[in-house]
Amino acid sequence: MCGTCNGDAAGSAPAATATISTIDPPSASTSNGVHPTRGEPKSSPYQSIQDYVSNVNRFKIIESTLREGEQFANAFFDTETKIKIARALDSFGVDCIELTSPVSSPQSYEDCKTICQLGLKAKILTHVRCNMDDAKKAVECGVDGVDLVIGTSSFLREYSHGKSMEMIQKTALEVIEYVKSAGVSVRFSSEDSFRSDLVDILALYKAVDRAGVNRVGIADTVGGATPRMVYDLVRTLRGVVGCDIECHFHDDTGCAVANAITALEAGATHVDTSVLGIGERNGITPLGAFMARMVVTAPDYVTSKYNLKALKSLEELVADAVQINIPFNNPITGFCAFTHKAGIHAKAILANPSTYEIIDPSLFGLTRYVSINSRITGWNAVKSRVSQLGLTMTDEQVKEVTQKIKAMADLRPLAIDDTDSIIRSYHLDLQQ
Amino acid sequence: MCGTCNGDAAGSAPAATATISTIDPPSASTSNGVHPTRGEPKSSPYQSIQDYVSNVNRFKIIESTLREGEQFANAFFDTETKIKIARALDSFGVDCIELTSPVSSPQSYEDCKTICQLGLKAKILTHVRCNMDDAKKAVECGVDGVDLVIGTSSFLREYSHGKSMEMIQKTALEVIEYVKSAGVSVRFSSEDSFRSDLVDILALYKAVDRAGVNRVGIADTVGGATPRMVYDLVRTLRGVVGCDIECHFHDDTGCAVANAITALEAGATHVDTSVLGIGERNGITPLGAFMARMVVTAPDYVTSKYNLKALKSLEELVADAVQINIPFNNPITGFCAFTHKAGIHAKAILANPSTYEIIDPSLFGLTRYVSINSRITGWNAVKSRVSQLGLTMTDEQVKEVTQKIKAMADLRPLAIDDTDSIIRSYHLDLQQ
Repeated sequence: MCGTCNGDAAGSAPAATATISTIDPPSASTSNGVHPTRGEPKSSPYQSIQDYVSNVNRFKIIESTLREGEQFANAFFDTETKIKIARALDSFGVDCIELTSPVSSPQSYEDCKTICQLGLKAKILTHVRCNMDDAKKAVECGVDGVDLVIGTSSFLREYSHGKSMEMIQKTALEVIEYVKSAGVSVRFSSEDSFRSDLVDILALYKAVDRAGVNRVGIADTVGGATPRMVYDLVRTLRGVVGCDIECHFHDDTGCAVANAITALEAGATHVDTSVLGIGERNGITPLGAFMARMVVTAPDYVTSKYNLKALKSLEELVADAVQINIPFNNPITGFCAFTHKAGIHAKAILANPSTYEIIDPSLFGLTRYVSINSRITGWNAVKSRVSQLGLTMTDEQVKEVTQKIKAMADLRPLAIDDTDSIIRSYHLDLQQ
Repeated sequence: MCGTCNGDAAGSAPAATATISTIDPPSASTSNGVHPTRGEPKSSPYQSIQDYVSNVNRFKIIESTLREGEQFANAFFDTETKIKIARALDSFGVDCIELTSPVSSPQSYEDCKTICQLGLKAKILTHVRCNMDDAKKAVECGVDGVDLVIGTSSFLREYSHGKSMEMIQKTALEVIEYVKSAGVSVRFSSEDSFRSDLVDILALYKAVDRAGVNRVGIADTVGGATPRMVYDLVRTLRGVVGCDIECHFHDDTGCAVANAITALEAGATHVDTSVLGIGERNGITPLGAFMARMVVTAPDYVTSKYNLKALKSLEELVADAVQINIPFNNPITGFCAFTHKAGIHAKAILANPSTYEIIDPSLFGLTRYVSINSRITGWNAVKSRVSQLGLTMTDEQVKEVTQKIKAMADLRPLAIDDTDSIIRSYHLDLQQ
């Protein structure tokens, strides 16, 4: 899994697609094989620009619902639930599934072995402290990869494990050599990377890269990094190591999705996610929101690789297992993610959904809804509803009934039945 | 409100604070007046770096719960609710409150006038289409500012209003002149700015800036922009206009908070928010998540200006009004935002909360919780609970009872009562 060009992060070549500027990119094959011609409309300015360090068109997902997710306050996964979630993640198409350390408890050990034996397409990884005992337990379970982690910030070195950078490096090299000798893939990650000394962690990553580690990991353990901090650190690291780069972002300051795409732009190859983002505190980059982001940036790659129509049932499975509601504002599956209300929006969306929708809901097996039950509706939206009801009115009549709807909506909340009644009653008056 | 250095975006000067790198910044006053000395520990690497184009230490909030928020699927605000929300936003300390267009409905017009007469400290703005009739209605209501908007993307020009860029500019200049002549502040914003032709919108913004507009607005109307796209566009615009720059980000792809801070880094002066992010589809930059982001980046500015302890009640007020639950993963106020569960985390957080917390919950009047009721707990966390319970045990005994807790947590979910019972029962056995 090593190589300076990160060639194995995905099969496809870097794609030259549309840019936000008005200048056409150099003539080259786009990701769908079409040569852009000057003057032709661009497919979307939100697609990735031609940038060879970027992996937005060939990233991999390390799905950590069964590790980070188990650190969520409400999470208790029995064996049956873990198996159900692992199978659902595998059907969705994630590249790797990360499990809780087998050292955590006897059942964690048994469950790790069980999931390794399910015969899933996804690689099975487990996440352990960087010491020989933990690594041996992990290898015993039959995992495809061992994810080593140790805190490198001065905070964690002082208040958690108390080790010096020299001790960390010495142990890391021994453990990496052991895991490799067992024929198992190995990742080495610092914890709290953004509060670690830059020179220290670059030196450490360089040493483990030379020792043949498959991936190094950057973790924003406290969720405080900004996209520009992420770009700088990952881009710097990309110039220091040849192996793959994994990133892990907590969402305490609401930047976990943006940080993930920015890391890919800077040369990271793998992104950690969990379903609905469940994890320590308010969690990490949510799988669904990350899919929303990436399907806009790299539509060909994402739609060909992931089973997007399974997202909703996957989220419902996990939400039920940890007894939470899908947040009202969840990208894609939040109840109103494709609801349009303002008159100015509804008019345009009825003419062309791309005007106010960057994601086609049908990609996820969902549909849009244009609401007309409010004071901010407009006559174009009402006209569409009139025609859905099989009624005939002139534009002037539609405008008049729109005023009646707005007047009623000024007084109280309206359901679609109420609005339909106002339209039907007005239409009846017209007939008489 | 104009000026190339954006001096009036806030009172304070650009602050030189700690950087993420190991090199000290040039000696200069930090935001709290302390001169950093080589070798001294930095206050936080997450604070803003010395960058004169950045406004992260002097931004303003345009709070749009009563405009964008009214476009949320569930929103119906009667007059009384609007007044309550406006007063709560004012107490929180937002700079401006934006209201639904008075042209939307008769009640919208009356409510706009009513809120203008409340005598709030916040400036009252209303958001109208860029035409003379709408602008006149807005001025009639007695607002402090009129926010003009028109779609400039080819999508919106074709499928919404059908106007050419020349027509847009001509109308904009006339309307701006009228609003200014009425002694009212005026903003001009494009809609769907990131899918608009770059040269077209720069030319348009340059023209309205020359005409004396107070602010120009950039809007990611479809929620598809990435932080790097935002930085590029805002930074370019910053070099073209001298007036203030407002940004409005939808959250369809989960980047609305990150885009907001990135816009400030690139020279924007004002950010649009709504409480819990409510708005069209899944909404915009949420006020609370934005506060979480900015209190980490610019702690002195944010804590001195905003009444952070009122955030939770403000969110509850709005959540009740639109009948939604606070999302489980909401930054700061989500039920588990300050809950620590993994053993490795709990050990460190008990020694020093900064290890795994980038935000001090007490700033928001909240408290942290260290959970020990799971298979991934550790003996240091259990030891802390043992001492909270007033019991005495050796470390070896704590390790033994920790194994009992893990064994029970492997079988079923545990509440704190269950864990306490296991500890007490073990302690009783020791006595006998």
